[in-house]
Amino acid sequence: MKRLHRTDLFTWSQFREPLNIDFNATLWTRPGGNVLIDPLALSAHDQKHLEELGGAAFVIITNSMHVRAASEHPKAQLFGPRAEKDNFPVKCSRWLGDGEEVFPGLIAYELDGSKTPGELALVLDGTTLITGDLIRAHRADTLGLLKPEQNLKDKQAALASIQRVMKLHPGIEHIVVGDGWHCFCRAKVLLERLLTEG
Amino acid sequence: MKRLHRTDLFTWSQFREPLNIDFNATLWTRPGGNVLIDPLALSAHDQKHLEELGGAAFVIITNSMHVRAASEHPKAQLFGPRAEKDNFPVKCSRWLGDGEEVFPGLIAYELDGSKTPGELALVLDGTTLITGDLIRAHRADTLGLLKPEQNLKDKQAALASIQRVMKLHPGIEHIVVGDGWHCFCRAKVLLERLLTEG
Repeated sequence: MKRLHRTDLFTWSQFREPLNIDFNATLWTRPGGNVLIDPLALSAHDQKHLEELGGAAFVIITNSMHVRAASEHPKAQLFGPRAEKDNFPVKCSRWLGDGEEVFPGLIAYELDGSKTPGELALVLDGTTLITGDLIRAHRADTLGLLKPEQNLKDKQAALASIQRVMKLHPGIEHIVVGDGWHCFCRAKVLLERLLTEG
Repeated sequence: MKRLHRTDLFTWSQFREPLNIDFNATLWTRPGGNVLIDPLALSAHDQKHLEELGGAAFVIITNSMHVRAASEHPKAQLFGPRAEKDNFPVKCSRWLGDGEEVFPGLIAYELDGSKTPGELALVLDGTTLITGDLIRAHRADTLGLLKPEQNLKDKQAALASIQRVMKLHPGIEHIVVGDGWHCFCRAKVLLERLLTEG
């Protein structure tokens, strides 16, 4: 796994040919049990790396289209988005709703207008935003929204819910995306540009 | 291939397990003939993508340890570092020296103290620094030098040559690295930190 901007954050990726972007998964290591977010399949090397870092106690799935390889972690507890509780493709032990503190330091938010209801975004320590599908980066140093042809349901609602998270967390500096290019120390500029240019 | 911060720059990567970083190669598309820098092996998909973008007319190899898959482009002209001319592992049609304008907008510099003499770094339009081995990023949003155990020859000389390029190009904003995490809009901060903390 690759080291992110914090010593407790790691990412691993798979290049997605039709989009020419990397799909990314995230690992947050912590004393109370490590957390995977939208985990992709792990190579043997990365699986070993994960075990060396303490394995995975929890898996957060931001939306039903990002279940990916969550089933590779049968010992972990799965957490899913509350708004999809009735039709979620995998069994979860906890359903996360808007503003919920998942673990100390990690807050979940429900984003509106995405391809699934109540897609989760996560804010870690008020500085790192971790996104699933709605906010993505098909080009480096640029954020984009899921597109209508990718099943964006309501653009204005989506932008409004992003703006709401920004107002709640004016200290967000970094964005770790599920799809595309992560962004470091540029979150404010890029999010504001996204809100302005849509 | 993945889109970088400019519409004429692309990158493709291979995860390097022993280091837990991506190795990266760069494509610069331009009317006078596209340029590859330290090309890694291309997947069939990326090979097709490259062809759609006009193929490769030139290959720049920054140092003899970064020849990688340059031989996959037999129709392209290969350019290598002048200081390694006498012992370079592949035949080049042009040898690049310090301060040389390779193509309009692209200037080569020789960096000192690296594992090979006269390793090339490239500055595109005064704003994007493209590096080979000496400047790398094993963690996101952090630059590092090649390490002594990786055969760094002279740290002080290396830092001095980086400082020299920075003085010649105070407008450098982005760094596209051969090894690790690219950096966008943070080059000045990260390079200054590298010079201070070594």
